[in-house]
Amino acid sequence: MESERETLQVWKERVEQELDRVVAFWVEHSHDQEHGGFFTCLGHDGKVFDDLKYVWLQARQVWMYCHLYRHFQRFHQSQLLDSAKAGGEFLLRCARVAPPGKKCAFVLTRDGRPSKVQRTIFSECFYTMAMNELWRVTGDVRYQNEAVGMMDEIVHWVREDPSGLGQPQLSGAPAAEPMAVPMMLLHLVQQLSEDDAELAGKYGELEDWCAHRILQHVQGGQVVLENVSVDGKELPGCLGRHQNPGHALEAGWFLLRYASRKEDPKLRAHIIDKFLLLPFHSGWDEEHGGLFYFKDADGLCPTQLEWDMKLWWPHCEAMVAFLMGYRDSGDPALLRLFDQVAEYTFRQFRDSERGEWFGYLNREGKVALTIKGGPFKGCFHVPRCLAMCEEMLSSLLSRVATDPDPSCSPSSVPARGGAK
Amino acid sequence: MESERETLQVWKERVEQELDRVVAFWVEHSHDQEHGGFFTCLGHDGKVFDDLKYVWLQARQVWMYCHLYRHFQRFHQSQLLDSAKAGGEFLLRCARVAPPGKKCAFVLTRDGRPSKVQRTIFSECFYTMAMNELWRVTGDVRYQNEAVGMMDEIVHWVREDPSGLGQPQLSGAPAAEPMAVPMMLLHLVQQLSEDDAELAGKYGELEDWCAHRILQHVQGGQVVLENVSVDGKELPGCLGRHQNPGHALEAGWFLLRYASRKEDPKLRAHIIDKFLLLPFHSGWDEEHGGLFYFKDADGLCPTQLEWDMKLWWPHCEAMVAFLMGYRDSGDPALLRLFDQVAEYTFRQFRDSERGEWFGYLNREGKVALTIKGGPFKGCFHVPRCLAMCEEMLSSLLSRVATDPDPSCSPSSVPARGGAK
Repeated sequence: MESERETLQVWKERVEQELDRVVAFWVEHSHDQEHGGFFTCLGHDGKVFDDLKYVWLQARQVWMYCHLYRHFQRFHQSQLLDSAKAGGEFLLRCARVAPPGKKCAFVLTRDGRPSKVQRTIFSECFYTMAMNELWRVTGDVRYQNEAVGMMDEIVHWVREDPSGLGQPQLSGAPAAEPMAVPMMLLHLVQQLSEDDAELAGKYGELEDWCAHRILQHVQGGQVVLENVSVDGKELPGCLGRHQNPGHALEAGWFLLRYASRKEDPKLRAHIIDKFLLLPFHSGWDEEHGGLFYFKDADGLCPTQLEWDMKLWWPHCEAMVAFLMGYRDSGDPALLRLFDQVAEYTFRQFRDSERGEWFGYLNREGKVALTIKGGPFKGCFHVPRCLAMCEEMLSSLLSRVATDPDPSCSPSSVPARGGAK
Repeated sequence: MESERETLQVWKERVEQELDRVVAFWVEHSHDQEHGGFFTCLGHDGKVFDDLKYVWLQARQVWMYCHLYRHFQRFHQSQLLDSAKAGGEFLLRCARVAPPGKKCAFVLTRDGRPSKVQRTIFSECFYTMAMNELWRVTGDVRYQNEAVGMMDEIVHWVREDPSGLGQPQLSGAPAAEPMAVPMMLLHLVQQLSEDDAELAGKYGELEDWCAHRILQHVQGGQVVLENVSVDGKELPGCLGRHQNPGHALEAGWFLLRYASRKEDPKLRAHIIDKFLLLPFHSGWDEEHGGLFYFKDADGLCPTQLEWDMKLWWPHCEAMVAFLMGYRDSGDPALLRLFDQVAEYTFRQFRDSERGEWFGYLNREGKVALTIKGGPFKGCFHVPRCLAMCEEMLSSLLSRVATDPDPSCSPSSVPARGGAK
C-alpha cells in the first residue's frame, strides 16, 4: 500500500515535469506563424527539416492543445488556444481536397495545397477530433458542425458505402477488417459523446457495434489479431497473423473506458486479460526490453523491415493502458507493469538534452532516427500519454488521501479532472 | 596483373557455385504446380509462409529462368523452361485487372484474383520483361505481342498521358520525377532491342531520352538524387534530398550498357564517376561495412525507419556495377571495389546452411528478417547478379587468356556470351 502510494507520487512528479518540457518543445519549434498550422518534421534540436503538413498531425496537435487548455490550469494559456485556432482554421480552409466533398488530404504543402490523399478514413477522423475539441474550448459552432458533419460521412463510409474513399473493388482483395477502423470510430464516439447526452444517444448503438467488432479481434482467447474477417474469423497468410502489440494496448484503454461507462466489471476483467496482458506478454522483448513493433501470431518472421524496432507510441499506449487498468481494477500487478514500461520508456526515449522524445530505436534500444517529429510523429502520443497519466495519477493520489485502501475499492467509473 | 587474374578466377568459381545453389533453392521451394507461377514468400528453410503472388516477382522469376535457360548450358533444362512458361501463362491469364485494359495488379491471390493495384508502371514493366524473354526462348509470338503492346502503353503513360494509372491530379503534388521511371524504361529498351534492329530503331529516341533524364539526377556533380523535377532541378524537403545508393549503382550499370552501345568513353568515365563512385562513397558504412539503404543528401536523418539497414539488392547491384565498370574501363580500382563489396556480400547475406541469401540485415550486419523471399524479394536480384557476374568474369578471363594485358585495352563494346 505504502509502496503503491510512493510509486504514484514519484511518477506524478516525473510525468508532470516531462509534460511541461514536451509542450515547451512544440511551442518553441512547431508553430507556422505565416500560414497557421504546425511544422512537424523537426530534427533532434527542433529545427524544421521539411515543411510539409501531414493532416493527421495537424489535427492531432489542434486536439492536443485544446485538451491541455481545457484540462490543465497551467496550460490555460492564450498562446496554446490561439495556435490551436490557427491550426483549426488552416484545416477548415485546406484539409478537404474538393469541397464540398468531405474527403481530406493526407499531406498538404505548407500553404495548404493537397499533395497526397489516402483511400482510408483516418485524416477525416483526426479532423473530427480536432474540430470537436476546438468547439469545446471556443464554443464556436462552426467547429462542431464540421465535426458532426464529418462524423456522419465517416460512419456512412464504414457502415454503408465505402465507394467515396476511392478504393477499387477487387475480386481477390481479402474482406478484412483492420482493428484500426472500429477503434478509431469508438474513440470518436467517446470524444463526441463527452458531456453531450444528445450525441451520446445518437451514437449509442454505434459505440456497442465498435466494441463488439474490436472484441472479435481476440482469437481463441489467446491472441489479438490486427486483421480478421468482418464476421470475426481468422484470415490466411501474413495479413491474418499480423500482431501490433501497441495497437492492441491502445484498443485496451479505449475499451476500458467503454467498460467503465457500461459499469461492467466482467467486461473490464476480460479486457485487462486480453488487451493488456496478452499483447504485453507476447510483445515485450525479454532480451533487450521494450515492445516489439510487430509480431507474427505463429512466431514466424514478420515481413515488415521495422518489426523488431522499438517505437515511442506503443510505449505511450502501454503506460496509459496499465495505469488505467490499475485505476479501474485496483490490481497492483498492473501498477507494477506501468512502472516497468514507464521506466524503460523514460530511460530510452526521452531526450534529456533537447526535449521531446526520440521516436525510433533499434531492437537494442539505440536511437535509430534522431528526428523528434516526422510524417507520423507529431505533438500527440507523448503529451497525450503524459497528460492522461498525470490526470490519472492525481486522481489516484487524491483517492489515497481520502481512502485508506484505494486498491480494494476501485471505482468502476473513473474519476475525472484530477489534474484540473 | 597476376593478382587481377587471380581475383577474377577466385570469384568466377565462387559465383558459379553460388548461382547453382541459389537456383536450386527456388526450383525446390517456389513452384506452384497447381496454378502455375511461383510462391515467393519463403522462410529461411524455403517453407511457404504466404501464398500471395506479387506480380513484380512472378514476372521477374519468369524472366530469370528464361535468361538462365538462354545463356547457360547447365541451365538449359526443360524444368526451368516449363516453369517459366507456366508462370508466363499464369500472368497472361491473371495479371491484367480488367482486360482488355492493360493495367496489371500488384498482388494476386494464389489462384490469380487481383488483390491490390499500384498506381505506377512497375508491374507492367516486369510483365513486359518476362514476355519478351519468354518469346526469345520459345519463339511464341503471343508473348512478343504482349510485350510490345504493353511497352507501347507504358510509354504512353509516361510520356503522353498518365491518367490511365489512376493517380489523382493534386495542386500540391510535387512535379517530381522518380529516377526509377526513366531507369525502368531504359532497361526495357535494352531488353526489347537486344539483337532486334527493328525495335532498336523504334526505341532509339526513347533510349536517348531515358539516359538524358537519368543523367539529370546528378546534382552539382556531387550527388545522385532519387527525385528531381522533370526539368532536372532540385526539389525541396525530404523528397528532394532522398538518396538511394543501391538504386544509383543499378542506374550506373544500365547507363554503362548505354555508353557501350554508343561507344562513348567520355560518357563512360562520367557514369563511373557519378553513378558508381559517388553513391558508393556516400553510401558505404565505414563503421560496420555495407551500403546504407537510404541517405539524406544534406546529411540529415532520413525519415524512413529502415534507412540504416543493409539490404541484399543494393549489394547485388554494386557487384554488377563495379565488375561492369572494370570490364569496360580496365581500371583495376573498380575490380578492388567489386572485391570489397562481394566479400561483404558473400560473408553477410549468404546462408551457407539452407541456400539463397538473407535479404535484410541491421546496420551491424545481423540478420533482422530470416525470410528468404517476401513481398519484394524473389528469384531475381541474387541470381541476376550472380549470372551477370559469371558471364562477365568468364569473358574477362578469356580476354586475359588471349591478351597479355587486358586492363590496358578494354573493349568499349562488352564481350557477350562468355558463360554460354
